[in-house]
Parts: sequence; structure tokens; C-alpha cells
Amino acid sequence: MRLANKNLVTIDDLSNGEMEAIFSLANEMSGTMNEQFGLCRGKVMASLFFEPSTRTRLSFETAMHRLGGSIITVSDVGATSLAKGESIADMARVIGSYVDLIVIRHPWEGAARVVADYSSVPVINAGDGGHQHPTQTLCDLYTIQKDKKTIKGLNIALWGDLKYGRTVHSLIFALAKFGANILFYPTPGLKVPEHVLKKLTMEYGGELERRDTLNRTVKDSLIPLDAIYLTPSSPHQLAMMPNLNLQVETRTGIDALYVTRPQKERFTAAEKGQELKKSHPVVDKKMLRGKAFRQTLVMHPLPRVDELAYELDADPRSRYFQQAAQGVPVRMALISLLLGIKEVPLPAEDTLPEIEYPLYRREFGPSCPNPRCVSIQETETKYLQPEFKVVNREPLTLRCTYCEHGFEPRYVASSDWHKGTIATKKYHSAVSHWARKIRPEYLIVFNSEEEALARGFKPSRFSGMRRQGKSKKQ
Amino acid sequence: MRLANKNLVTIDDLSNGEMEAIFSLANEMSGTMNEQFGLCRGKVMASLFFEPSTRTRLSFETAMHRLGGSIITVSDVGATSLAKGESIADMARVIGSYVDLIVIRHPWEGAARVVADYSSVPVINAGDGGHQHPTQTLCDLYTIQKDKKTIKGLNIALWGDLKYGRTVHSLIFALAKFGANILFYPTPGLKVPEHVLKKLTMEYGGELERRDTLNRTVKDSLIPLDAIYLTPSSPHQLAMMPNLNLQVETRTGIDALYVTRPQKERFTAAEKGQELKKSHPVVDKKMLRGKAFRQTLVMHPLPRVDELAYELDADPRSRYFQQAAQGVPVRMALISLLLGIKEVPLPAEDTLPEIEYPLYRREFGPSCPNPRCVSIQETETKYLQPEFKVVNREPLTLRCTYCEHGFEPRYVASSDWHKGTIATKKYHSAVSHWARKIRPEYLIVFNSEEEALARGFKPSRFSGMRRQGKSKKQ
Amino acid sequence: MRLANKNLVTIDDLSNGEMEAIFSLANEMSGTMNEQFGLCRGKVMASLFFEPSTRTRLSFETAMHRLGGSIITVSDVGATSLAKGESIADMARVIGSYVDLIVIRHPWEGAARVVADYSSVPVINAGDGGHQHPTQTLCDLYTIQKDKKTIKGLNIALWGDLKYGRTVHSLIFALAKFGANILFYPTPGLKVPEHVLKKLTMEYGGELERRDTLNRTVKDSLIPLDAIYLTPSSPHQLAMMPNLNLQVETRTGIDALYVTRPQKERFTAAEKGQELKKSHPVVDKKMLRGKAFRQTLVMHPLPRVDELAYELDADPRSRYFQQAAQGVPVRMALISLLLGIKEVPLPAEDTLPEIEYPLYRREFGPSCPNPRCVSIQETETKYLQPEFKVVNREPLTLRCTYCEHGFEPRYVASSDWHKGTIATKKYHSAVSHWARKIRPEYLIVFNSEEEALARGFKPSRFSGMRRQGKSKKQ
Repeated sequence: MRLANKNLVTIDDLSNGEMEAIFSLANEMSGTMNEQFGLCRGKVMASLFFEPSTRTRLSFETAMHRLGGSIITVSDVGATSLAKGESIADMARVIGSYVDLIVIRHPWEGAARVVADYSSVPVINAGDGGHQHPTQTLCDLYTIQKDKKTIKGLNIALWGDLKYGRTVHSLIFALAKFGANILFYPTPGLKVPEHVLKKLTMEYGGELERRDTLNRTVKDSLIPLDAIYLTPSSPHQLAMMPNLNLQVETRTGIDALYVTRPQKERFTAAEKGQELKKSHPVVDKKMLRGKAFRQTLVMHPLPRVDELAYELDADPRSRYFQQAAQGVPVRMALISLLLGIKEVPLPAEDTLPEIEYPLYRREFGPSCPNPRCVSIQETETKYLQPEFKVVNREPLTLRCTYCEHGFEPRYVASSDWHKGTIATKKYHSAVSHWARKIRPEYLIVFNSEEEALARGFKPSRFSGMRRQGKSKKQ
Repeated sequence: MRLANKNLVTIDDLSNGEMEAIFSLANEMSGTMNEQFGLCRGKVMASLFFEPSTRTRLSFETAMHRLGGSIITVSDVGATSLAKGESIADMARVIGSYVDLIVIRHPWEGAARVVADYSSVPVINAGDGGHQHPTQTLCDLYTIQKDKKTIKGLNIALWGDLKYGRTVHSLIFALAKFGANILFYPTPGLKVPEHVLKKLTMEYGGELERRDTLNRTVKDSLIPLDAIYLTPSSPHQLAMMPNLNLQVETRTGIDALYVTRPQKERFTAAEKGQELKKSHPVVDKKMLRGKAFRQTLVMHPLPRVDELAYELDADPRSRYFQQAAQGVPVRMALISLLLGIKEVPLPAEDTLPEIEYPLYRREFGPSCPNPRCVSIQETETKYLQPEFKVVNREPLTLRCTYCEHGFEPRYVASSDWHKGTIATKKYHSAVSHWARKIRPEYLIVFNSEEEALARGFKPSRFSGMRRQGKSKKQ
Repeated sequence: MRLANKNLVTIDDLSNGEMEAIFSLANEMSGTMNEQFGLCRGKVMASLFFEPSTRTRLSFETAMHRLGGSIITVSDVGATSLAKGESIADMARVIGSYVDLIVIRHPWEGAARVVADYSSVPVINAGDGGHQHPTQTLCDLYTIQKDKKTIKGLNIALWGDLKYGRTVHSLIFALAKFGANILFYPTPGLKVPEHVLKKLTMEYGGELERRDTLNRTVKDSLIPLDAIYLTPSSPHQLAMMPNLNLQVETRTGIDALYVTRPQKERFTAAEKGQELKKSHPVVDKKMLRGKAFRQTLVMHPLPRVDELAYELDADPRSRYFQQAAQGVPVRMALISLLLGIKEVPLPAEDTLPEIEYPLYRREFGPSCPNPRCVSIQETETKYLQPEFKVVNREPLTLRCTYCEHGFEPRYVASSDWHKGTIATKKYHSAVSHWARKIRPEYLIVFNSEEEALARGFKPSRFSGMRRQGKSKKQ
């Protein structure tokens, strides 16, 4: 059984078949809750929450209790040795030597990956900064599937803070995997990060149409649609693109509206100043009175603040409290599968294997540009080297292994050409034709000429190309 | 069995018979502690403490563990989604979908009522601001009863902070229910709130004599007695009133002295400035050497600060550590009864049924005047409407359903008289004869003429009456 | 079986035989972990952590869970009634009436002693300020013994913050008990406190050689050796003293290097300013490449900050993660022995009995000079009297019963000589010949002449002796 001893760090760690196996077991367990007690007898789970949480921590802990297992909890960063300057790796190794399973929430993006790398037991990411929250996604999908029987081909609208909402980021990839169409309705200023959209189209196929290319009618509709992702399994829809928004909203309808709260705790000072939330309408009965919303499941990962009206609580379309309640059986299923206590048959033919990108890993050179990335934090740089996947060559794009933020380095060199002699150490613009010729294992990248010069490299004839390009743009 | 699935929000939720059933089961369980393990196997209790606690939280959790049940805990408001602005109702619904029982402590008065209203499982109030703390009262009564065999007819003295001490407020009503006399010895400035005293005399019968009406001898006794509540079951005592204090203190004696700590965390800025505690004597051996204290149980809900001398710890009259220790068996009994796991026979004839007051509930008009009331907090007004019980007509008195603070609105109108036409919308003084004629279902109240005018009402001939009354008083 | 119902406050509470019994049971349990579940069924442990902790709290809790017991936890001082000004004694009494075992960590030195004195159940000290951390010492010794088969005669080097490191203080006494030699390598400014060294030589025998008496060669070696403690079981080594350091480092070798982190949270303002850590080399591969370190176990109680390089993690000599992992079986053994659930045979002949010192206890006079001592804290002085052991007469030395800090009072008097009459109340210098003649039960001490005068004592002819001595030194 493939799930035993696996980690769940990002939703990519699970195939479609594995997710369906979890849903199936969750369904079975929720019907026979009392019979599950004792299943995890003698097992100990660490529940490590370094950010505020109600639902996620308490539902994980309830799930483990319902299985008869035991729990050790950290729910306050101030109360642990991280406050004394300990690294995540050290904590992971130590706690991993105590328990059978680790659940971790942490404000640094990629922190759960580090815990998984350094502990000897299965690790579940319960939210790492604005990166991912895969178990929330399992609850979300399970809720949709219970109602709609399938996820394939559905139109799912994402609403609110799509920039910092980690539940949204995990959900996007899962929806794409299952072949849903996604409509993006971000609060102005809180769009889905570019690196998420790029991964979406590069790895899951499908097409993304941005607001700029949507026609006027679409732009002026009630809700400010920002982009549409069309799954490759809906190939014919693309031809109807100009009218898609109207079609989706008024004809096919929206199958689920996934509302999210502005994640103010992650806002930059500038974003706080703009009071982003005020510019977005509240989801209420009035907004949902159109034909497109007749069959819409109203979802929210909770907690809500002002973005979702209480009047919808009694509405037959609302699903957010069920969504939360599913947290217990879904997590019971996940825990017992990762611990190898339960097994479920997996389909012989499963989803496409993960794409293998070349790794970029050097003692020097760029570190991850994401200020929340675990790999650049003072306590972690003592042992963590920056590590990236080379996900694209034109333009050259590196994606951080930990937080999955991407960036396009401006200069490149090769460790092959110079064979260690200073004389041949030259750097080139990343957009020059030389750049494309460097084999991944020899690739060296720099974000600035200063960096390159500091490492003893000298400009080649092709080092200036991008700067010219830039000045033209300006 | 009436107790299964009930909530315990205020001590009024339990009849005398039910309380005695709890005591009887607690007694049985404390004698056979080891046999109780496994009784709550597979059950999960949420222990939600949004205010500091040692005794209450730990004894609830120990009780559940001794029964073999499991616990999920929140012991730090900063670590939960309430910190993200979530409402109590949302939290109650979600956690209620996880567990079998909720125990909640919260600084807002009435918060436990909201949790009970919105969750689907039994809820126990473990202290809501300065309002009530009914399980402490169960421990208090159980301790007294173990020693004195009965509570009826006892003289119980309450000492210290009677204003903010929630344990005192719950205890007062329970003592009255069981037919005890109550002597009030408040720290100057920290008297029992008027709304508590009013409820006491209105709903439990009995007579209240204030300090002003007590004779000189009484006033000058060692301890500054503020008031005496005489249970209706002691009708003859009233005739002896002028000497009652002397009689109680020197002849009958005080059966229990219930000392409380100044609840400084709830003091207003002005109260903090006055350093209230300094003006009150410490309860020590010297104070208790009189004949009246020979059989007195010295009690304290703990924690103590300076109000109770350590020299009493070894005194045979001291009961405060036993009182704390009873927390485990009493809460074991309560938990297993509310979960329906244990049943106890209840007497056929039980205490008087609760008084049914007319409800006052309008979209507009006064909100609760208590600044700590849950119903006026920003996160809660999104879904909570003010709700009051009309507990008196002369003077017209409304009592908040949540925090039980009372107030006397100054103006009234009727929704019957004008049938929706503006012309007939008139408001009257609450003390006018019109006020008394309005049927409860038509009643509209205002705290000020501005409020009434703002809702489109105009003054009637009788709108000025109270203002005149007021100016006369001045 | 001697261990049932005992307290473990300092490492002195355990004889060598008892420690070996714990190691033997820990060893057995770690090999049959799954069979231990259920052993503590129905038992409840209080896990009270008033200082940050990861390893200690979580390994205690994991240990109890692996035994099938239950836990109540306090992991945040702000969330308990200590925040309301409650004393440690009150807390100990109350929680001791709930549970079967208390584990306590507290910033005040001697706090665990108070808990043990006032609770009715066994108490384990999980770290009290800079005083002791005996269960860490058990893990440390167990780790060494597993590798080296014995502790007797080993050379153990202690490295880093030897002033505030409580794990070091417990370890020193245990090593001495088992007959190891100890090499002290403190960070400059963070030497082992004098009172620890004095207790070491006075109670465990052996000889201590300070840096000043070591020869030049020794002083100039790579590592700044500050002192060497030679166990009495190595009598012949002393003769070789001048070359001992060389011998130990280059010939016999160091059996274990125990590295500790600077305990910055306990630094004084002056110590913080000096940035003590910067002046001490990091323990890394380069430092450990000498012949003396070939068989050295590299140990650290964790968390580490910068004092121990990550490159050692993969080194075959590193033991710090095993040390942490042993926390679970060692604590499982300890818990089940203190609860009387497990019994192990103890050797008939055990280590030397504890030395019995005369107690000094007066209503007036000096309080403990240690600002972190539990006995001088505002909330505790209400019930705690200063109490000292008279551990030496020349010079007269008192050791606090709680925190074990020692001091030499400057003036003495006798309660025998004057028989209560003022006229004979005279005080003398503590170094005068009169001082030696006072029998312990009559001893009165003062830290200053003002103190003595304030209590009605007058100077004798011998009261000025120490002042003269002092002025000579200046």
C-alpha cells in the first residue's frame, strides 16, 4: 500500500487514486465512528502548531483521539525551544525520534518539507505560511465530491484572497488534477501568485485566459472575474472563450463558490494600508440570487470575518460547516493510512507521474527571493543549502524546492566551460543564446552582475543583453 | 434521565434534585475512582479556556481522563482563530461537530450561552467573565453538604469581591434555591451587583435587608456586614431582624465563610486606583476566634492572594483544599451524566419550575448596557440580536438573556397602537400609566429620546414624566 | 522498592544503584516499546512547564502516553492562576490532589522542592532555573553508559555555559558519584558556580585543580581548560598532575565532550553586553581532529544554537540525537518506578548515605542571596521561611535548602548565651574564635552589622575581625 510512511507536504504528494482512497475510507469511517476507537492504540502523534489554529489542530487531534491514539501538542511558538533559536531540522529529528507521526503548521513556507526531510516518521503539512494546506484541500474536495459525485468538469469559482490563501493554492492544483475548470475572482490586489499560475499551466495542462483577453461583457459582469483556467479535458470550451464567462455564470452555472478571508496576518505594510477587503463585495443572498448560482455549493475554509454573510448559514447551498465537520473523518482516514494501520486498494492506472526537473544546488549564488521561505531564515541557513528545480529554460526559471516560489535569474555561467580556471570564468545574460546551451548539471546562475563579479566571473560579450532589453521596455 | 444532553450555562439550569443527584454520584465515584476508568472510552471533550485557569481546566481534564475519555484543549486565546476575528458562534458550530462535550471559559459574559445555542453537543460554562461559574458552585455546595449534611437553613457568609466574583454569583442563587441564609460582607466598593440581588429576591423569594436598615449594633460589629438575605424557609427569623446580625454571629454562628480574592483583572481603571483590597481585613486566626466562627467552614474558590492567611491552612475549619480536590469527582459525575453514560434517579417532586418571562427582541433599540456582554462585541453583533427578558413592569425592567444584566429603559412605545402608520408612533415615559398597559408582544423600549426620535417616534404627553421625577430627586 | 513515591528534585535524590536500576529498566523498555502500553492505564500525570521546553515536556508526555497513561498540561505561565498571584505551594497542593504524578519546570531555583514539599504525590523536577535538571542527567548518563559500558574512571569534558547550564550542574554531581574525572572548559565568564564546586569537593571527595595551579603547557593548549576534578577512585593521577591535561587530552583521551548552549535567557544585563558566546570556539570537525578526541562521544542536551557545528551531525562520534531519543525510555522507566508500577531489584550495598547537615531556620536574619531562589519571591515569602544547611564551620557556610546557593555570613551570635536577656545579646565576627564555639542549634547569623543592631544585638570585642581582614585584602 503506497500511502504507509509517506509524507503529505504538498497536494502533489498524492495521486488522484490516493485521494479517492482517502475519501472512500473517510466515508466508511464517518458512518462507523465508534468502531474506529482503538485502531491507533499505542500510537503517538505530534501536533505542532506554530501559528494560530482552531479547526485544523483540533480536528487533527479529535481524529487521532477517535482512533484511540495519543497526542503531544505544541500550540504556542513562545513555549518551545524554537524560541531559544533551535532550527526546524533539529526539532524534526528529535520529535521524530519520539512519535509515530508529525503534523506541523508553521509560518515559514517550506517548513513542512524540512520537517519531512529530517524526521524519521511520516509528516503532514497542516499549513506552511502562504504556501499550501493539503489536508484542507482533501476536506474541500471530499465535500464537493459528496454532493456533486465527481470533480471532473465542474466549474469552481475561487473568491477573495487568492494571493496569501494557502488553502486556495493547494486546491487549485488538486482541481486541475481532477479536471475541473477554475474561475478566479480575487479581491483586487490579491490575485493568485504568478508562480502558482505558471505551475498550473506547465504541469497540469489546460489553458489560462487572463482578464485582459476576456471581452468587455465579461469584464463588466457583476463579479470582477480575473482569469479562467480551462482543464484540458474540456477542449471544446476554449473555442467558446469570448462568451465563456457569460456561459459559465448564466448557463452552465458555478458548481462551487470557494470564499476565502483576507489573510491580513500576511499582508505587507502597503497592503494593510490599502484596506483591501473593503473593495470586495460580501458574498450574501443577494449576490447569489442569479441563475448561475442555483446549484452552487457555498464553501469557505473558515474562519470567516466579513466576506461571507451570516444570512447564508441557513441557506441550503451553504456547505462550510459540513466542510469543517469533514475534517475529522478525512483526517482519521489519512492518519490511519499514513501509519499503515489501514490499507485501501489503489487503482492500477493512476494519474500522470510527477515531472522530474533538473535540480540546481550550489554553495554560492542566489537564495530564494521569497522572504517567508524557510530556506533563507537565519536559524536554517546553518544547514540548509538553497535548492531549486530548473522548471523552464525559456525564460530560464528556477523554482525553490521548499516554498515553490519561482524566479528568473538574470545571468548564467557554466561550470563545464572553464574547468576551474579563473580565465574562462565568464557570465552571460540569461536570455542570450549561450544560456540555452548550458547543460543543467553545469548551470550556474546569478541575480546580478555584482554577484557574478564577486565570485570571480567576468562579463562575456553576451552579458549585456538583458539590460538592453530592459532599457527598451522602460 | 433529564440530565443527558443538557447544557450547564447558569446554575439555574439545574434543579435541586439534579444537583443532589450529581453530589450523590460524585460521592460514589470518589470512593471507587479506579473503577470509573473506561466509562467515557471513545468520548472526546473540548476544553476551551480563553482566560487563565489552573484548577478549573485541570480538574475538568483530570475528570475526563479518570473516566477514560479524550480531550482537545485550547488554553490560549492567541493560539486560535478567535485571534483572526472568528465569532463564538462559528467556533461553537465547528467544534461542536468534532466532539461530544464542550467546556468553555471566556471573558465575555454570556459567551457560554452562545456556545450552547450554536453547538450540537452539551456545553458546560466554566466561567464567563463576571457572570457565573456553575461547576465551582457544585464543588462549593458539595463541600458544605459533606460536612453539614444539609444546606437548608445554614448561615453562609460571603466575603471579599462580591462584585466581580462569578463564583459568588452562581453560589448566591444556589444557596437561595436550597434555602440557606446569606450574609454579605463585601470589600468596600465591591458589593453584589444590584441585578443579582433583584433576581435573588424576585425569583427565589426570601427577604433582603440592607445595611441601611440594620440597626447600629449590627453596623458596628467587627465585620462590615452589608446585607442579609433570609430564605423564605426561615420566616420567623425576620421578626428578630434587629438583632439578627448579633444572633447569627454570636448565637447561631456562621456555618461557612466563603472568602474570595479581588478579581483585579476585571477592575475598572478607577477601581484599580482605589486599591480596594487594602481596605478589607485579612481572614486569619484572629478574626475567626469568636464564638460565631467555632463551627465555620472556611472556604475559598482559590487562587488566593492576600485575603486568606496561610496560618489557616492547618486549621481544622479550613476546607479550601478539599473544595478544590472535590473538583475532580464532582466534574466526573457531571460529565458522565451530561453524556448520558450514567443515570441517576431523580425525585418525582423537584424544585419550582423556572419562571417564564416575556421575551423582548427587536431589530432596533437598546443593546445590553454591560460592556462585557457577549451580545455587544463587534464579532458577535453580525449574527446576534439583543434579547431581553421583561422581568418586571414596575419599574419596567429588562434582563439580558446572555449576561443577565438588567436595566430600566426610560421610554416605551407600542407596536400595536399605530399599526405601522407614522402618525400614531408616539413614545411615553416608562413610568407613565401608558407604559403598564402595553402588552409584552407589542412593547418597544428606548433608552433615550434621541433613540426614539431617530426611529421616527414622537413624544406623547407622557414622555416627560421621568425627567420631572429625576429633577425632583436632584 | 525504594523508588515508589519518591521525589526526584536533585540528582542527589537517587543513589547509584537506583540510577542503574532506571537504566536497566529503560533498556528493557526501549526494546519492547509496544508491550509497555497499558502499564500506566488510568494514571494521570501533570506536566507543568512554566518555562519554554520542547524536548523535556514532549518526551515526558510521550513516555506517559507510551505507558498508556493520561496527561494534563500547562505549557504557558500566562494561562494559569500563577498569573493571578497564586503561590507555588497552593498550586502544588491543588494539582497534587488531582493527579498521580507531577512533572514541573519553573524559572525559580528550588521551585520543584516546594512542589515536592506541598504535594501529596511524587514530583519530578524537569528543570528549576539554573539549579538542576536531573532527568536530563539520567539521559546523559544512560547515553554514556550504553557506549562506554561504565562511567567510572571516564574523562568527561564539560564545554560552554557552565554557569547557568542546569543540566551541567546535575551532571557534575552524578559523574562524581559514579567516579568519573571532569574537565571544565567554560566559555570565559561562564564558569561553574563556586557553590557547585564546593559541594563537589566537600561531598563527593576527589580533588579539584584550578587553572591557576595548572602549569603553562596546560594553559596554552588549544582549549582553555579551567579546572579538573579528579575522582577519589583515581588516586594516582593526582601525582601526575602537572601533565594531567596533556595526558588526558593526548594520551588517555576524552571519553565524552558535553557541549552546552549559552543560556542567554538567564544572562545578566552585563553578561548580555559582553556577548559571551563570541569568545568561545565552535565545536566542529577541525576542533575534534586530535588524537584525544578519537573515541569522544560528542554530546549536547540540545537545543543548540551556534556552539556545535551541523557538520558533526553525520560524524560517528556524535550522540546528541540519541541522547534526546533516550528521553522517552528513560522517562518511561522513571515514571513507572515512581508510580510503583514497576519494581526492580536494588543492590544490597548502595552508595554512601547523604550527609546530614545541621539546619538553620530563624524567623529573622538573612534570606537566600540568590535572586532566582524560590524562597525570596514575593508570592512565596507568605509561607516559606528561609532555611539553610550549615555545611561548613571554617569558614562558616550556609547553603539554601531550596536553590543550594551557599554564602558565608559575616556575623554570628548565639541564642544560648543570653537566655533571652537583651544585655547578653552580642554579635561577633564569623571568623572569630567565638563563632566556632556556638552549637548549631543556638546559631544566629547576620550578613551585616545593621541587621544585628536592628535585632537588638550589640557588637562584642570580636565583631570587627572580618572587617580588618577585608581591608587588608583591599
